[in-house]
Amino acid sequence: MIEDKNQQRTKLSDLGEFGLIDHLTKNFKVKQKSTVKSIGDDAAVLNFENKKIVVTTDLLVEGVHFDLSYMPLKHLGYKAVIVNLSDVYAMNAKATQITVSIAVSNRFSLEALEDLYAGIETAANIYDIDVVGGDTTSSTKGLLISVTAIGEVETDDVVYRSGAKPNDLLVVTGDFGAAYMGLQILEREKEVYKVNPNNQPDLEPYSYIIERQLKPEARKDIIKLFKDLGVKPSSMIDVSDGLSSEIIHICKQSKVGCDLYEEKIPLDPQVISTCEEFNIDSTTVALNGGEDYELLFTISQDDYPKIKANPNLSVIGYVKEEKEGVHLVTRADTRIPIKAQGWKNFND
Amino acid sequence: MIEDKNQQRTKLSDLGEFGLIDHLTKNFKVKQKSTVKSIGDDAAVLNFENKKIVVTTDLLVEGVHFDLSYMPLKHLGYKAVIVNLSDVYAMNAKATQITVSIAVSNRFSLEALEDLYAGIETAANIYDIDVVGGDTTSSTKGLLISVTAIGEVETDDVVYRSGAKPNDLLVVTGDFGAAYMGLQILEREKEVYKVNPNNQPDLEPYSYIIERQLKPEARKDIIKLFKDLGVKPSSMIDVSDGLSSEIIHICKQSKVGCDLYEEKIPLDPQVISTCEEFNIDSTTVALNGGEDYELLFTISQDDYPKIKANPNLSVIGYVKEEKEGVHLVTRADTRIPIKAQGWKNFND
Repeated sequence: MIEDKNQQRTKLSDLGEFGLIDHLTKNFKVKQKSTVKSIGDDAAVLNFENKKIVVTTDLLVEGVHFDLSYMPLKHLGYKAVIVNLSDVYAMNAKATQITVSIAVSNRFSLEALEDLYAGIETAANIYDIDVVGGDTTSSTKGLLISVTAIGEVETDDVVYRSGAKPNDLLVVTGDFGAAYMGLQILEREKEVYKVNPNNQPDLEPYSYIIERQLKPEARKDIIKLFKDLGVKPSSMIDVSDGLSSEIIHICKQSKVGCDLYEEKIPLDPQVISTCEEFNIDSTTVALNGGEDYELLFTISQDDYPKIKANPNLSVIGYVKEEKEGVHLVTRADTRIPIKAQGWKNFND
Repeated sequence: MIEDKNQQRTKLSDLGEFGLIDHLTKNFKVKQKSTVKSIGDDAAVLNFENKKIVVTTDLLVEGVHFDLSYMPLKHLGYKAVIVNLSDVYAMNAKATQITVSIAVSNRFSLEALEDLYAGIETAANIYDIDVVGGDTTSSTKGLLISVTAIGEVETDDVVYRSGAKPNDLLVVTGDFGAAYMGLQILEREKEVYKVNPNNQPDLEPYSYIIERQLKPEARKDIIKLFKDLGVKPSSMIDVSDGLSSEIIHICKQSKVGCDLYEEKIPLDPQVISTCEEFNIDSTTVALNGGEDYELLFTISQDDYPKIKANPNLSVIGYVKEEKEGVHLVTRADTRIPIKAQGWKNFND
């Protein structure tokens, strides 16, 4: 388990609110041509010429979305950026800027926040985006991160959730359920650690699923792939709340039904073996686990030849008329209605 | 004091995260031509044609920025929007869209959040902006609101903090210190209420300063006034952290000094009388109180004839060379260096 054992800690009260944001972002470089003015004024100034822009925002709350007893702050900073970029890519747009606001209690040191911002900076560099604004403030309890991401897209390229048509193919990137199973492993190890802090767990057999939980990636590569292949999806969404609830979003907003084939859902071998170890159904995990940050989209069957050979893409279903409903077709060839599960954070 | 005495309370857990944002924003109308797609997809889609856009973000945290024992939720929603719009206007831009994310604990009912969003909607209608996105999530404690505001501006109209020149005039809108003194009254009444809940305070003599604290306005009117008068400030900032710290921001970023004349700082009579009642210096309050959401700007002396007759604007100082420093010239004609105080939320 990861803990901040750094003894050289600088109290946030030594810096004050004005010093903090300057300090944390002073090394951030502007990379995007569209960033005219970054941090340091009342607002950032951006220039997208004739392109459309997309805007999306997400909140991550300690104790709800993350647990710092196994989530290193650097990974958390990285992940907070990724979950927002994923929404930008789901519009078939190029991510260009983010703003990052944090509320943080006095139990965090300056060095802890530097770790958080190091993760933010790493993501910004890898995904080629600028951090153009933000706010740092104190909280009465815990850490909260609010990220707003901005992207640009040519008018004709925007893909909404609402464009799926009957006979389209339902396609996904990557595989599913890994982040959820990674979380199960981390929570199990946290319990073990409480009982025996000297226990050194062997997490090697779970390396992929733990990485999917702690350091997810957004599918920037797929947006480029669509351009290269000359494919424009008819609808698209990113998979943050679980495959089943995202399929329902697409179907509802496109006014269509669909069949999802259980046998076609891509699963990593580590997900299968860990599900066996925990004695839970891997399809349930893939459908409802969430935090995959893969893309779910539909394409016209005419585009199938362009994508069929691509190892990043899996056809998992088939779009039907709305009246046909939304179903999972199981390996045993039974049809089960799909219901959204997703995250229910407001449960008592 | 205002408390939620509504007995018909709907638990947030009855709705779940998906239902909540749809429910809270279902009546919001799109007003801006630049809003192509609002809430309901992975991201909003905006079209600013050839204009530049400005982006700014602010976090408001319960127990740090507001106290729900005297801040009605509807006012809080309104204020959360205003503090962000103020930053957009400070760029000489037109505010067009916001996103609103909230983290909220289970102690809040659906009806409480409806009040909050009613305030957000009121501000959106009055200031003619669209609410195009957001996130609702649970928190382990209290309420937190994160707003990102977007605006549009012609390239030649953008005003930064950094453009002030020696011999420019330092000008402000409105008056100062009222929101701070309103807060002092509200906190005093809260203490009285704790001792005697049946006490009915007479807040009439403090109506203006309390309104400035609970329901501030942003100076959208001034951006229009600049256009009408043909004035473009050389630098501008909004006054959220206190006049003194904003003057220092302008001077630092413009590499200039300035003289601020104590006698010229506009004060409302209620601020003066309440300062007397509390036995505190009104100039200190005006300089360091904050939350005024007025605009502080500099103009060339050539523009003075255009603004001198306007009751909304007060010339309070004079821009000098950087080496002259930043000073308050008191009524007794002594010169005191101005230091930023501002909000120091990270104090132990």
